[in-house]
Amino acid sequence: MSSQGLANEDPSFSYDDNWYMYGPIGDQDDMAPEVIPECFPTIPYDLYHACMAPISLVILLILSLLVKRKTLYKSCWDGAPGLLSPLRFLEEDGEKGLTVAVFGILFSSLCVLVLDNNPLPFLSDSSTQYREYWKIMALLYYPAFYYPLIACATVQRRVGYLFGCLLSWCHCVVHLWQKVECPQSPKIYRYYSLLSYLPVILCLLVLSLWYPVQLVKSFREKEKVVADEIPGSDYYKDYLKNILAKKSQKRSSVSKPSLQSRLQSYLRSYIYTPQKGFQIPLKLVLSLAMALIAVYQVALLLLAAFVPNIQIVRSGMTKELTALFVQFGIVPSENPSGVPGDKELATAKHYIWSVEVCFVTSLVISCLLTFCMLLKSLVKHRINLQCLYRGAVLDVFYRPRRLQPSQQALVCWMCFAGFQTAFACLGLLVQQIILFVCTVGFTFLVVIPLQSGSNMHLFKIVENMWPFWLTLVVAVFVQNLLTHYCFLERDCIPKELTNRRALYIVTYLLFPINVLIGVLAGVWRLVVSALYNVVHFCRLDVSLLSHGVEVFDPGYRTYCYYLKIEVSQSHPVMKAFCLLLLQTHSPTRRKGLEPREAEEGVKLMKTTMSTSKASKSKQNLARWSLAYTLLNNPSLLPYRKGVLSNQTPNGMQVSPAKP
Amino acid sequence: MSSQGLANEDPSFSYDDNWYMYGPIGDQDDMAPEVIPECFPTIPYDLYHACMAPISLVILLILSLLVKRKTLYKSCWDGAPGLLSPLRFLEEDGEKGLTVAVFGILFSSLCVLVLDNNPLPFLSDSSTQYREYWKIMALLYYPAFYYPLIACATVQRRVGYLFGCLLSWCHCVVHLWQKVECPQSPKIYRYYSLLSYLPVILCLLVLSLWYPVQLVKSFREKEKVVADEIPGSDYYKDYLKNILAKKSQKRSSVSKPSLQSRLQSYLRSYIYTPQKGFQIPLKLVLSLAMALIAVYQVALLLLAAFVPNIQIVRSGMTKELTALFVQFGIVPSENPSGVPGDKELATAKHYIWSVEVCFVTSLVISCLLTFCMLLKSLVKHRINLQCLYRGAVLDVFYRPRRLQPSQQALVCWMCFAGFQTAFACLGLLVQQIILFVCTVGFTFLVVIPLQSGSNMHLFKIVENMWPFWLTLVVAVFVQNLLTHYCFLERDCIPKELTNRRALYIVTYLLFPINVLIGVLAGVWRLVVSALYNVVHFCRLDVSLLSHGVEVFDPGYRTYCYYLKIEVSQSHPVMKAFCLLLLQTHSPTRRKGLEPREAEEGVKLMKTTMSTSKASKSKQNLARWSLAYTLLNNPSLLPYRKGVLSNQTPNGMQVSPAKP
Repeated sequence: MSSQGLANEDPSFSYDDNWYMYGPIGDQDDMAPEVIPECFPTIPYDLYHACMAPISLVILLILSLLVKRKTLYKSCWDGAPGLLSPLRFLEEDGEKGLTVAVFGILFSSLCVLVLDNNPLPFLSDSSTQYREYWKIMALLYYPAFYYPLIACATVQRRVGYLFGCLLSWCHCVVHLWQKVECPQSPKIYRYYSLLSYLPVILCLLVLSLWYPVQLVKSFREKEKVVADEIPGSDYYKDYLKNILAKKSQKRSSVSKPSLQSRLQSYLRSYIYTPQKGFQIPLKLVLSLAMALIAVYQVALLLLAAFVPNIQIVRSGMTKELTALFVQFGIVPSENPSGVPGDKELATAKHYIWSVEVCFVTSLVISCLLTFCMLLKSLVKHRINLQCLYRGAVLDVFYRPRRLQPSQQALVCWMCFAGFQTAFACLGLLVQQIILFVCTVGFTFLVVIPLQSGSNMHLFKIVENMWPFWLTLVVAVFVQNLLTHYCFLERDCIPKELTNRRALYIVTYLLFPINVLIGVLAGVWRLVVSALYNVVHFCRLDVSLLSHGVEVFDPGYRTYCYYLKIEVSQSHPVMKAFCLLLLQTHSPTRRKGLEPREAEEGVKLMKTTMSTSKASKSKQNLARWSLAYTLLNNPSLLPYRKGVLSNQTPNGMQVSPAKP
Repeated sequence: MSSQGLANEDPSFSYDDNWYMYGPIGDQDDMAPEVIPECFPTIPYDLYHACMAPISLVILLILSLLVKRKTLYKSCWDGAPGLLSPLRFLEEDGEKGLTVAVFGILFSSLCVLVLDNNPLPFLSDSSTQYREYWKIMALLYYPAFYYPLIACATVQRRVGYLFGCLLSWCHCVVHLWQKVECPQSPKIYRYYSLLSYLPVILCLLVLSLWYPVQLVKSFREKEKVVADEIPGSDYYKDYLKNILAKKSQKRSSVSKPSLQSRLQSYLRSYIYTPQKGFQIPLKLVLSLAMALIAVYQVALLLLAAFVPNIQIVRSGMTKELTALFVQFGIVPSENPSGVPGDKELATAKHYIWSVEVCFVTSLVISCLLTFCMLLKSLVKHRINLQCLYRGAVLDVFYRPRRLQPSQQALVCWMCFAGFQTAFACLGLLVQQIILFVCTVGFTFLVVIPLQSGSNMHLFKIVENMWPFWLTLVVAVFVQNLLTHYCFLERDCIPKELTNRRALYIVTYLLFPINVLIGVLAGVWRLVVSALYNVVHFCRLDVSLLSHGVEVFDPGYRTYCYYLKIEVSQSHPVMKAFCLLLLQTHSPTRRKGLEPREAEEGVKLMKTTMSTSKASKSKQNLARWSLAYTLLNNPSLLPYRKGVLSNQTPNGMQVSPAKP
């Protein structure tokens, strides 16, 4: 939407004009308008979509039928429909790379689409009046179009991997071929199209490597019974082991950390280093990856829209235009008549070049800042999740909250990745605007005056005001000195006030100067709060509003609700417990559980267990584990209580025993 | 400083030009440039200052000597110097009106001074090159000049009141006389000088009424021994009574409040209603009163600088200027040649009038908002102080903090009133800028297009984008419906997720649309956080940064430190306890305590008490009171512990006994 807005407002985006299609300008010889010819690839987009869409549909149907048949074979309509789950957000599948790749393809395609004239590939250019409608249709078409790419993996059967291979190879080859044939396009900037398709191609390459690897792996592990392995079970076991082993690793040194170690730990809070036995949930990884792609696309668009144009302006700068600059006093003229010479022209060109440098610098800084913030938010996510797993709700939300699913929470959970992506886009735009203004101001008020010695307005103001600054500094200094030596008893702990009359007199006499200090503090407050908000805009885990009204910040609110769902539904200890239950359960039902039913394991807690003698000891083990884990994870208690209250008569009741 | 900045930037402030001295324009006949003659009052400013400054100095010396003699008479140099305390910030004197009036005079004089060409009245216009220095000198001169006005009251003797009467009457008469003789001045706007001096005159009137009343009262209460009455003792006793009586007043109804009562309580949180047995400390009252005067002065300056000038522009609008407007497409022209007629001229004038209305409207809204915020902060101050008195540090600072004086805290305490004043000024300016831009945007994009039917840009954009908006609304609606009916088990509490595969599929398919919803949410986040920060800028009790980094907000930091000093030094229960101590102490020393030594009463806690048999029972009473008050006010405990740790051998130790 942001880039769409840009496209609507900026007339240079309309691709009918030709004047911006000049190449990047180094010498004057390059200036001839080099028109990029319209390029027609061997496989045009409409043919590609017309072929791939039916193929995808057929593959989807075949896989669906396969899944359906298996379910029908066991027991008719037992709650698992023939739908292909695209990905299991709330389970740890270990397929994060695949998910990120497919979402990356989808999001990048849509980024390209927003500026495109043919949002839907089947439509010709003639239907421009309905373009808005087609764009909306495209928002629904593209997810469906790429759906089989992700669905093939979740079937977890050889045929799925095989179809996945074929599909990803097809997509990849077509895209690569198109871009090799037509690397340049007349839109915005000659290489813009190529560069904006780069993430799509990279993600497709990842997919076309991942599927064959999985296929080969499935042939190798022929002997293993696949059904025994429940996806993510390794992670849950690791987490549980880590939790239980943690107790012995506690440090006993509580000495005050040195400055260096504090600095190190501060820097470390910006760098995400994987922790053993803990994985960031899929949805968070996905949203941050999408945010990075969004940052890339927005930065590319800004760069492609601004830099070539300003280079054209710079090289097209004439003496007539310079005269205008001189008249406005922007370019200093040594000629008293005001007619600009070569020197003035060079100065004007230098100024425009400075603006260009400022733009690129601020864009680089914005991207780096956004990247740092996203990385830091990853660290914060882990801390928050670990706190909530421990049950320390107050450390995260600063107020008591129930970790239970609700309608609002689930809607926010669904929106979360989209919100993170959008906020990264918007945050980069806002940062770029603010930083660009700041760097241009700094360049033209400080750097260029220092270089050339002209336009010293700022320095003159500062020079004229030095007595004022001095007064303020002296006033602050005097107040501190007086407080230290006169108004506080120095040899008494806690320190006590003394010489109160003198204190009151000084307070009264310095009131006017303190008002002026207050004005400076106020300006500082304005700058700090604005900068803080701009820099932290892309982070959903930070509220931009102050304590107590955080709920009115839509980003932070979404994040809180997201955490609620994530913790209540995919607490690793709960999952590990479900695994234990499944394992004790399976001997009695003889292969009754399919791996894809593991996600419904929670429901098992409600069913009455058949108490055969063989499984008695295992059951006891499970109960003991339950009691122990509940004691160590109090956040699970309310969740469990709710289940028990529904199932009191014949439910599995465990009185918490001391381990 | 803010107004100085304005004056420096805006060329219309330099008073050499004459073109802005036109009167407010109603008819075209008023347009003749009516030059306001320079007015010379009978008592010019320099003569007034030349007379009053020595008189003030003499009065100050006399009073100082009086105070000095009394102290010398008792015991030589016993810690109380001959300085006249201007006001007792940390004690409840009940002289808030007086203090506010004197500070009001001081601050208003300085506001006028910032724009003045003669910052110091003794200097002629010729010394303009050193004006900055004189302005800084004036910042120190004016507090000293008005010092006797406040010092006369704190002597609390008849002669002090007498001098106070004489001084305030002199000041008042001279100011009134000057303004009656010269109501108009050529600076900025003809009545600007008069209006900006209004607070000074009002405050002087208050003073010239207050002093005679005190004088008469002191004659009436001749029989009472003044020394017995310790200032503020009534309040402390009231507070203690209220605290002790509170227990029985607890409400037992914990039923959920209705919407109406919640709305009422919300509105009530904006209106400060005095509570029995609690007074806002002097410094807070003072800072809010100064903030109000600052708001008045800034609003007056903005109004006087903008409205007359734009009225001149409006009445001077010609067809040539209108042609420029028409060329830029601002004023719609029905004439195809673009030559403006009477209708276009009228439209242009109407537009300028609209800008004027927008300016005044936004200024009124800004002032009201600032006023509401200041009133609300008064309520918040009371809540915070009551919490801290109770010892609930976490409720106020959200983290454990020690309520002890420190150098930083004391410096912040000294600056507090100045900061509050400056923040109110700056807050109003920022609010005015933002609101002015918003109202102008609203007027020219919504109101005028609706009136005239031209310039319908915004409406056209909204109209073109309606499928887009509809899609977003439908997507949100669908997600909520699906969540409610499909993805949550409805008859199970706590609610559980169900149909997970469908949930994942919907999440995947709606991802692109959720990104667009996220962009809207991001814009909303931007707007909400910007508006919140702008509106709350004048409040020091609200941090503009989010939880955890509040300390980087200079305003909030100052407020926190201010609270520390205020609570640790003027806890009413501690004061009441000191009163009790003084009363038990006085019989043994026979009239040994002067009222102005009450403020040093804390020190008595450290001295060993002479244990005559007569005072034994009173001492026991005091100990019991101490124990009881400490039990009810745990925040006093650390403070007391510190004192005890210094004084263990012969200090007054009280083991907390159950009342």
